[in-house]
Amino acid sequence: MKKPVRIAIAGLGTVGAGTIRLLHEHKDLIELRCGRPVVVVAVSARDRSRDRGVSLDGFTWFDDPALMAAEAEAEVVVELIGGSDGPAKAVCLAAIAHGRHVVTANKALLAHYGADLARAAESRGVALAYEAAVAGGIPIIKALREGLAGNRISRVYGILNGTCNYILTTMRQTGRDFADVLSEAMKLGYAESDPSFDIDGIDTAHKLAILASVAFGTPVAFGDVFIEGIRHISAMDISYAEELGYRIKLLGIARLTEHGIEQRVHPCMVPLATAIARVDGVFNAVVAEGDFVGRSVYEGRGAGAGATASAVVADIIDIACGRFVPTFGLPVGAMRPLPPSPVERRRGAYYIRLMVVDRPGVFADIAAALRDEQVSMESVLQRRRAPGESVPVVVTIHDTDEASMRRALARIGGLPAMVEPPHLIRIETL
Amino acid sequence: MKKPVRIAIAGLGTVGAGTIRLLHEHKDLIELRCGRPVVVVAVSARDRSRDRGVSLDGFTWFDDPALMAAEAEAEVVVELIGGSDGPAKAVCLAAIAHGRHVVTANKALLAHYGADLARAAESRGVALAYEAAVAGGIPIIKALREGLAGNRISRVYGILNGTCNYILTTMRQTGRDFADVLSEAMKLGYAESDPSFDIDGIDTAHKLAILASVAFGTPVAFGDVFIEGIRHISAMDISYAEELGYRIKLLGIARLTEHGIEQRVHPCMVPLATAIARVDGVFNAVVAEGDFVGRSVYEGRGAGAGATASAVVADIIDIACGRFVPTFGLPVGAMRPLPPSPVERRRGAYYIRLMVVDRPGVFADIAAALRDEQVSMESVLQRRRAPGESVPVVVTIHDTDEASMRRALARIGGLPAMVEPPHLIRIETL
Repeated sequence: MKKPVRIAIAGLGTVGAGTIRLLHEHKDLIELRCGRPVVVVAVSARDRSRDRGVSLDGFTWFDDPALMAAEAEAEVVVELIGGSDGPAKAVCLAAIAHGRHVVTANKALLAHYGADLARAAESRGVALAYEAAVAGGIPIIKALREGLAGNRISRVYGILNGTCNYILTTMRQTGRDFADVLSEAMKLGYAESDPSFDIDGIDTAHKLAILASVAFGTPVAFGDVFIEGIRHISAMDISYAEELGYRIKLLGIARLTEHGIEQRVHPCMVPLATAIARVDGVFNAVVAEGDFVGRSVYEGRGAGAGATASAVVADIIDIACGRFVPTFGLPVGAMRPLPPSPVERRRGAYYIRLMVVDRPGVFADIAAALRDEQVSMESVLQRRRAPGESVPVVVTIHDTDEASMRRALARIGGLPAMVEPPHLIRIETL
Repeated sequence: MKKPVRIAIAGLGTVGAGTIRLLHEHKDLIELRCGRPVVVVAVSARDRSRDRGVSLDGFTWFDDPALMAAEAEAEVVVELIGGSDGPAKAVCLAAIAHGRHVVTANKALLAHYGADLARAAESRGVALAYEAAVAGGIPIIKALREGLAGNRISRVYGILNGTCNYILTTMRQTGRDFADVLSEAMKLGYAESDPSFDIDGIDTAHKLAILASVAFGTPVAFGDVFIEGIRHISAMDISYAEELGYRIKLLGIARLTEHGIEQRVHPCMVPLATAIARVDGVFNAVVAEGDFVGRSVYEGRGAGAGATASAVVADIIDIACGRFVPTFGLPVGAMRPLPPSPVERRRGAYYIRLMVVDRPGVFADIAAALRDEQVSMESVLQRRRAPGESVPVVVTIHDTDEASMRRALARIGGLPAMVEPPHLIRIETL
């Protein structure tokens, strides 16, 4: 029997336990694929005594994960602690420094330090693999780095956060409002006790920055991502979206433009006829557009122990088989930094919902504000009349640039009839 | 500069020309990915003088592709001739015999000789790569062999033939009948001058047999695939499908059952709410279900020069980077032959359309025939009355086994009121 591949795992939450379970349950299959056994030799977590539903017998326990990464006799260190700093980063750096391959599910870490870690891994000649960091079980990193390797990618976008997609789907299906659905999701364990990373779009932005780096061969530039979450989406917006033939999805969109790389995360209205509009609940989906391959779509579970463990183990098998790919698909020295193209340069359609006092002349003022910024309306919906009371006026805007749109909204926001600040959702025809 | 990777290409149809164009246009990107240049050194095709829109200057010309595979100084031979026998097979065998890696887009060859070729490649230590053979630009072979490598796959299915999907989509959109849409597709070049491989389901079956082998780790067993094409699908069936909430798609379905491997290709009614129902025109889609990852869906262009070249070049880059995977994901010796589970064992729902003379008692006879085989109806549609004339009676059947269904249909087919043999379409709830 050939020498086994020895694995050390830092972090034994649901994904860590799921990885141990997968490696155990499919031991024979994995050995066949790798030509040698894959064995866990060491683990580290905060609490040794917690019941995780998997046996830790035979694994060397480390209280300090970075010490484990340095000292355990392992070829591969799997980092499943999470968080962009602190122990997760220390584990990865220690593993690399000691010439061990790293497999991680940590999108925050890669979004913040991806370029540095890639350089460190490259200089030590070890792999830094992170299929599990983006879109869970969907092998999208492999698709972009290898499957579409012959293409210039012009755009990559998708639904990258299952919590937001679950909330938006439930809001649509039940007609309930955001706060209500969020608190239920927290009770059910579909949202974290501090859900802000998810619902404010940060998690999606982490994943988008990684996808953009791989797709365009540029260093990860998380700081350049425009981020808007879903807190402001109301049941009313969701209902108007349906009426207009759209679904509201939180998308991460990265695009190679003549001005540089555009990266933005925000709720979008997408046409019902698109594949992405139909991706519901906790599922994720990524669309990649390449110059030779055209459009390709990847859909699957974006989170959960099983799907994430599937991605972690795929990375382990690749490493065990000696299949090596540069961290972001190109050697670090070949990555081209490109300027960011800010969201203000976006040109597209918009949905705006205005809560106004229903009195004569209000709509004329709105129309004038739009006209003064050369923004032209495509449609107007005003569902009910209620003289003297607050009513919604919904306007869709056909192809204009974001800067003009914002100037027009600033004007409209200043009109005396406005009861709330204007609500804006970008329409993406995709 | 490092030694280039030298490529010989056999077959210069649209895919061959597309591959040359891709390798040329993205020369720099590919060199960055591989760490060395990738250069075409030799080509072979039937007609040297034909204008293919790409320059062949600098390539050594061979009239005999097998001779090229044997003698050209190339590490990789790309076989794009097509066909399950003859020159394509000779090229692959010659390349392997001379220790050269093979990249092929040839599903017929792999469906018929995949196991033999894999054994030959393994014993010579060369790669046999065929991403382009299944679902064109979609990296589904990579997803199954590597991305989902830690999973036991229980089912893989999909829309694998763009010609059939184009015909079925157009029939639905225009209400026109099969023969009419097919002849138009042939005029437009969307269908071959001899379209039988596509419309009779053979091409889908080739691809399905390959997918099943990779998914389940069994030797390719094309001979075990149940195959039924789309010639018998009428505009009337498509219209009834819509009415019942389904779309008709030609699917290839492979499933690991307790009795062995089920492989079948036939038109299916799939619920409108499924992702696969919405895949229209020339697009392909594959769904893979793994025990850890759950359901994942892959969609993209299934044919065409660009998409197929994208897959060919991805394989070339993998080989140039030294990334090696056993042909069907496992060493040949580890593949488990499993018995075929015939379509007669299928248990599921059915749509049957009966053309009957509209006279009293006909429906009672039909109902009795179904009852006698313990087949229970779910719904009955009879759109119009026309006493004494031929009218359609549509019956949907809830979960029964194929053998009972067939016996019931044999009984029904023998009823005196039947004007045509019964039409059957399987309903797949997926």
